[in-house]
Amino acid sequence: MGDLCDREKNTNVRISLPAVCFVWQIAMIILFGVFIRYNEESSPFWIEHRKANNISSDIENDFYFRYPSFQDVHVMIFVGFGFLMTFLKRYSFGGVGFNFLIAAFGLQWALLMQGWFHSLDYSDGKIKIGVENLINADFCVAGCLIAYGAVLGKVSPVQLMVLTLFGITLFAVEEYIILNLIHARDAGGSMVIHTFGGYYGLSISWMLYRPNLSQSNRLQGSVYHSDVFAMIGTLFLWMFWPSFNSAITDHGDGQHRAAINTYLALASTVLTTVAISSLFQKHGKLDMVHIQNSTLAGGVAVGTAAEFMLMPYGSLIVGFCCGIISTLGYIYITPFMEKHLKIQDTCGIHNLHAMPGVIGGVVGAITAAAASEAVYGHEGLINTFDFEDAFKNMTPTRQGGHQAAGLCVAICFGVGGGIIVGCILRLPIWGDPADDNCFDDEPYWELPDDEESIPPVLQYNNHMRNKDV
Amino acid sequence: MGDLCDREKNTNVRISLPAVCFVWQIAMIILFGVFIRYNEESSPFWIEHRKANNISSDIENDFYFRYPSFQDVHVMIFVGFGFLMTFLKRYSFGGVGFNFLIAAFGLQWALLMQGWFHSLDYSDGKIKIGVENLINADFCVAGCLIAYGAVLGKVSPVQLMVLTLFGITLFAVEEYIILNLIHARDAGGSMVIHTFGGYYGLSISWMLYRPNLSQSNRLQGSVYHSDVFAMIGTLFLWMFWPSFNSAITDHGDGQHRAAINTYLALASTVLTTVAISSLFQKHGKLDMVHIQNSTLAGGVAVGTAAEFMLMPYGSLIVGFCCGIISTLGYIYITPFMEKHLKIQDTCGIHNLHAMPGVIGGVVGAITAAAASEAVYGHEGLINTFDFEDAFKNMTPTRQGGHQAAGLCVAICFGVGGGIIVGCILRLPIWGDPADDNCFDDEPYWELPDDEESIPPVLQYNNHMRNKDV
Amino acid sequence: MGDLCDREKNTNVRISLPAVCFVWQIAMIILFGVFIRYNEESSPFWIEHRKANNISSDIENDFYFRYPSFQDVHVMIFVGFGFLMTFLKRYSFGGVGFNFLIAAFGLQWALLMQGWFHSLDYSDGKIKIGVENLINADFCVAGCLIAYGAVLGKVSPVQLMVLTLFGITLFAVEEYIILNLIHARDAGGSMVIHTFGGYYGLSISWMLYRPNLSQSNRLQGSVYHSDVFAMIGTLFLWMFWPSFNSAITDHGDGQHRAAINTYLALASTVLTTVAISSLFQKHGKLDMVHIQNSTLAGGVAVGTAAEFMLMPYGSLIVGFCCGIISTLGYIYITPFMEKHLKIQDTCGIHNLHAMPGVIGGVVGAITAAAASEAVYGHEGLINTFDFEDAFKNMTPTRQGGHQAAGLCVAICFGVGGGIIVGCILRLPIWGDPADDNCFDDEPYWELPDDEESIPPVLQYNNHMRNKDV
Repeated sequence: MGDLCDREKNTNVRISLPAVCFVWQIAMIILFGVFIRYNEESSPFWIEHRKANNISSDIENDFYFRYPSFQDVHVMIFVGFGFLMTFLKRYSFGGVGFNFLIAAFGLQWALLMQGWFHSLDYSDGKIKIGVENLINADFCVAGCLIAYGAVLGKVSPVQLMVLTLFGITLFAVEEYIILNLIHARDAGGSMVIHTFGGYYGLSISWMLYRPNLSQSNRLQGSVYHSDVFAMIGTLFLWMFWPSFNSAITDHGDGQHRAAINTYLALASTVLTTVAISSLFQKHGKLDMVHIQNSTLAGGVAVGTAAEFMLMPYGSLIVGFCCGIISTLGYIYITPFMEKHLKIQDTCGIHNLHAMPGVIGGVVGAITAAAASEAVYGHEGLINTFDFEDAFKNMTPTRQGGHQAAGLCVAICFGVGGGIIVGCILRLPIWGDPADDNCFDDEPYWELPDDEESIPPVLQYNNHMRNKDV
Repeated sequence: MGDLCDREKNTNVRISLPAVCFVWQIAMIILFGVFIRYNEESSPFWIEHRKANNISSDIENDFYFRYPSFQDVHVMIFVGFGFLMTFLKRYSFGGVGFNFLIAAFGLQWALLMQGWFHSLDYSDGKIKIGVENLINADFCVAGCLIAYGAVLGKVSPVQLMVLTLFGITLFAVEEYIILNLIHARDAGGSMVIHTFGGYYGLSISWMLYRPNLSQSNRLQGSVYHSDVFAMIGTLFLWMFWPSFNSAITDHGDGQHRAAINTYLALASTVLTTVAISSLFQKHGKLDMVHIQNSTLAGGVAVGTAAEFMLMPYGSLIVGFCCGIISTLGYIYITPFMEKHLKIQDTCGIHNLHAMPGVIGGVVGAITAAAASEAVYGHEGLINTFDFEDAFKNMTPTRQGGHQAAGLCVAICFGVGGGIIVGCILRLPIWGDPADDNCFDDEPYWELPDDEESIPPVLQYNNHMRNKDV
Repeated sequence: MGDLCDREKNTNVRISLPAVCFVWQIAMIILFGVFIRYNEESSPFWIEHRKANNISSDIENDFYFRYPSFQDVHVMIFVGFGFLMTFLKRYSFGGVGFNFLIAAFGLQWALLMQGWFHSLDYSDGKIKIGVENLINADFCVAGCLIAYGAVLGKVSPVQLMVLTLFGITLFAVEEYIILNLIHARDAGGSMVIHTFGGYYGLSISWMLYRPNLSQSNRLQGSVYHSDVFAMIGTLFLWMFWPSFNSAITDHGDGQHRAAINTYLALASTVLTTVAISSLFQKHGKLDMVHIQNSTLAGGVAVGTAAEFMLMPYGSLIVGFCCGIISTLGYIYITPFMEKHLKIQDTCGIHNLHAMPGVIGGVVGAITAAAASEAVYGHEGLINTFDFEDAFKNMTPTRQGGHQAAGLCVAICFGVGGGIIVGCILRLPIWGDPADDNCFDDEPYWELPDDEESIPPVLQYNNHMRNKDV
C-alpha cells in the first residue's frame, strides 16, 4: 500500500505537524504565564477570606457542585466523540487519535479565549480559572470535534489543528455575543455548540469538496468490530449527556431539572430512531449508522431548554421528533447534500448536530417565551432566566425573541466562519491526502503488520514462508 | 447467508417493530403529560419554600447526594449489561443494540409504574420525580436486562419489547409488595432485581425451549476480540457495583458502608472465581466465560446486606462463597439445566443473578436478624432498618423473617410471571428467528460487508476482481 | 499450537494458581476479621456522636468529598491499566484478565498493610476504614500494576500474585517512611507510586532477563484492533488522571487545584508527544505506542506538585517536557536498555512511569522549596504542607530537601525490592512460559476457536468440511 500514498499528493507532515505542535504549545505556555491564575476557590491564599465571608464549609466549594459533571463531560469529549469516529474500517486510529490531539490543544486555547471574555479579573488583568472554566473549555472543544466529524478521513492533522485554532476563536466570540450581549440562555449549547459546530463543519466540507471521492470509497464503510467500537462512543455520549446539559446550569434545582429533561429526551429518541430505521430498510433491518448517531439527537435538541420548565412530557416530545428527523436525515438528506449541494458529510453531523441544534434553539425560544411566574415562581423565574442587573426589565416573551436572535448568530458564525476557514484549508500546503488515501490511516500512522489486511492467499503463503524460516 | 434467513420463519419486523415503538412511545408521552411532574428539589417554584424551611444551601439538594451514583448505575445499565452481551461472535450488534432499545423504553415505563406506587402526590394526583426516581427506573430496567441474558440471540426485538413491558410491570408490583407491604430492606436489589430478573428470564427461556438448537450452534461461541469487548462490560459492572448497591441507601454512613461492603465482596469473588476456573479445566487454563461473569456474583449476593453491619470480613466471606458457587454453576449446572430441565440460558444468568440473588436474600435475612443496638447504636438501628411509623414495634429478629418472606415473593413473581409472559411470546406473530438464525445478527441488522465473513478463497477472488475493475 | 506449549517448560498452573488464590483469600478473611472495622463515618453507631459534635449534615461525610474521585481512580486501575495492556496481538486476555486478578487481590492486602501504618485505632487495635482507605488501596495496587507492565507476557499468573504480595508490602513500608517519617508530600504519588512501581518492575524484569526472546517475538506486536482496545485504556487513564492526583488532597481548594494542574499538564503532553512521534519517524507518521503511553507522562510528572501552587503555566511546562522525554525514551532508551542493560520492558514503563516519576519528585521538591506566604497565604501554607504538630518549625526550603529525600527512598525501595523479588521469581516452580510461549494467551487461557487464527486456506477447507457434515 505504501506506493499508493504518494501517488498524487505529499502527505508527509514530518515538518509541519511537529512545527505546529511546538509553536502553538510554547505560545500557550507564554500566554498562560501572562494571563492565567487560580481563582478564589482553587487557591489556598483565600482561606482566611473565605472564613471571613462565612463560607464555613469546604463542601460549598464549586468543585463539589461541578466536578462529577465535569468528568462526565470530559469522557464525552475524549471517549464519546473519539470512539464514535472509529466506525470506519481503516480510520480508527485517525478517528480516536486526531480527536485526542485537537481536543488537547483546543481546551488550552479555549481557556484563554473564553477567559478573556468571561473570567477576566479587571483588578489585575488576570484570568482566574476554576472547574467551571474547565467545563466550558471542554464545551468549546466539542464545537470543533463536531466539525471534525464532517471532514473525517479527508484532512491532514495539520489542517485539523488549523480548523481547531479558528474554531475555538470563533466559538468564543459567538458565545460572548449570544450569552452576554444578546442575553440568550443556552445551558446545553444547542445553539452555541451544536448549531455553530455543525454549520462550521459543513461549510468547511463544502469548501473542500472532492468530486471524485465516491469512486474510491472502498474504505468508506465499517467492518463488524469497528461498528462495535463506535457503539462505545455512542453509549458514553448518550449516558453522560444529562451531565453535559446540566454541567453549568444553576446549582440545585437547575442542575437537577436539566439532568432529568435530558435523560427523558434521549430515552424517547432511541425508540423513534429504531422505528424509522427499521421502517425504511428492506426486510426491516436496523442500520448501525442510525443507532450510533440518531439516538443522540434528543440530547442535542433539549440542550437549550433543559434548564427551563420544559416538563417531562415536553422532553419526551422533543426526543420523539428528533429521532424521526435525524434518522430520515441519514436516509434522505445526507445523500441529497452530497449529490446536489456538494457537501460530503462523513459522520452525518447535519443530522446529529446541525438540524437538532436548530430545533433545540427553537424549542428553547418557545419554552422561554411561554415562561410564567405561575410555573416558575417569582424568584424561580428571575433565577432561571437571570433577569438581573441590566436585564431587570426583561419579560419571558422578549427573552424568547432574544433566544431566536441567538440562534441566528450561531448559524451565521458557523456558515461564515466555515467558508473562511475552508478557504484557508484549501491552500496546497497542509499535506492533505489524495482521494485514494481518504479514510485510510496509512498516510499518517505507522500501522501494525495486520495479517488480516493482506489478501488471504498471500497471507497463507507468508505464513508458510515464516514457518520455513 | 441471505437465503438462510427465511428458510423456516419470517423474521421481518418491518411493520411490527416500528408499530410497537411508535405506539408505546406515544403512550408514554400521553401518560407523562397526565401524570409526571418535577419534584420540589428539581423545580424552581419551591425556592422560597426551601428558604423558609431553612434548607439554606443548594448542596443539600438530593441531586448532590445521588447524582454521581446515578451516573455509575447508568453506565452499568447501558455499557455494563450491553457490552457483557457482545461476547458472541456474530451477535454483538444485537447484544449491545437491543439492550439499548429495551433499556430506553423500560426506564420510561418504570418511572410511571414505580411512580404510581412510590411517588404519587395525593394532593394533585401527580407523580413527582427527582434523581432518586431515575436511579430506581434504571434498577427496574436491570431486572429485564437480566432476563434478556437468558434468551440472548433467540428472540426478536419485538419479543424483547413485550418481555420488557410485562417485566417492568411485574417488577413494580413485586417491589411494592416486598419493600412497602412486607417491609423488607433491599438496597442493592439482591431479591427485588436479581432474583426476580433471573427467574423471570429462566422461566421465559424454559417456555421458549428450542430442542434442536444445539445442532446449529455454529455461532454460539465467541471470537478473540468479542471476548475482549465483553470484558468492557464486565469491568464497568464490577467497578461501579459499589455505586449500584449504595445508590439509594441512607445519606451519609449508609451510602458509605454499602460502597465499602460491595467493594470488598467483589474483590474476594475474583480470587475464588479464578481458582475454581483454573482448577476445573484441563491444563489449569482459565475460561473467559467465568472471568466475565462469575467475578460479579459477589456484588449480587451482597446487595441486600450491603447497607447493614455485615462487617468487612462478612463481605469477603460472601464474595468468597459466591465466586465458587457461580463458577461451579457455569461448569455443571448450566449444561445440566439445558439437558435435563430444557432451560437454555445463553449468558448463564442462573449462575450470575438467580443463585447469587437468592444467597443475597438469605444473607440479608440473617444479617438483619442478628442486628442489635450494641452494634448499630439506638438511632442507627432505627435509621438503618427504618423502624418507624407503622413499623415502630419491629425487632431485628422479626425483620429477618420479613426479609425471608420478601425473597419468596421475588421467586414467585419471577417464575410465575416468566411462565405467563413466555406463553405470550410463543405466539407465532413476533418474528423470532429460526434455529439456524439464532445467535446471528443477520436477520435484524444491516451488516457491513466484512471481508472476514466470506470464505477466504472467495475473498481473494473478490479482491482480485475488484482490482480488475 | 497446543504442542508448542509444553516444549520446554510446564506452564500448567492447575494446582499452584488455585492454591495461592484460596490460601491468600482465606488469610485475608481471617485478618480482616481480626483487624478491620468501619470508621466513624461509615458506621451508624456514631450518629448521636456526630450530632453532638455539630456535624449536622450528612453532606459533610467524607464520602461525598471523595467518592466521585474514588470511582474515577477505580476505573483507571481496572479499565485504564487493564486495557492499556491489551495492545499485544495475542495477549489481550492476559493483559486485562491478570490485571483484574492482581488488582483484586492487591487491594485487600493493601487495606491491611496501609491500615496498620495509617488507620490503626490504638484504643481497640482495629483498623478503621472509610472511602479514603479504598482510594489508598487502589493507589497501592497501581504500583504493582505498573510493575506488571514491565513483565507483561513473560510471567505466569502465580508469579504475578507473588509480585503483588511483596509489592504491596514494600509499598506500604516505603509510603510510611516517605509520608510520615520524612514528611514529604506526594498527593498524586509521583514518587510513592510511579517511581517505586517503575523501578520495582524494571528490576524484576532485569532479574528475569530472557536472552533469546527477541528471536521468537512473532507475537510481540499489535494488530489494528488491539491498538484500538489499548486506546480505551489510554483515554480512561488520561481523562481521570485529574481525579487520581486530587483524590486524597485537602478538601476544598486542594482538590480543586490538583485537578486543574493535572488537566493542564496532560493536555500539554499530548502535543509534544505527537510532535516528537512524527518528527522521529520516516514520513512523519505517528506511532501508536507513543500516543498510547507518552501522552500520559504529564500526569505522572505533576503528581507530587499538583496540590502545590505550581501555577497553570508551570503545569503546562511540566507536561511539555515530559511528552518529549517520554517519547524519546520509547525511541532510544527502551531499545538501549534491552540491548545493553538486559532489561526487557514490554510496556515501556521506564518511559511512562519511572522517568516521569523522578521528574515529578524533582518538580515537587523545587515547588515546595519555592513556596512562600506571599503566594499561599499564612494559613494556606500551613494547610498545604501540613506544617503542624511535630513539624511546626518546618520551612519551605527544608520541605524541599525532605521531598528530595523521599524520592531517593522510593528509588531505593523500587530497585532493592525488585532485585529481591526477582530472585524469588526465578525459582523454577512458578509455571512461567517458555520463550516461545511469551506474549501468548494460549498457555493460561482457554481460547475460542477463532477462524482468524487458522491459516486461511485451511480455514476455507474447514468451512467446506463443516458444510458437508
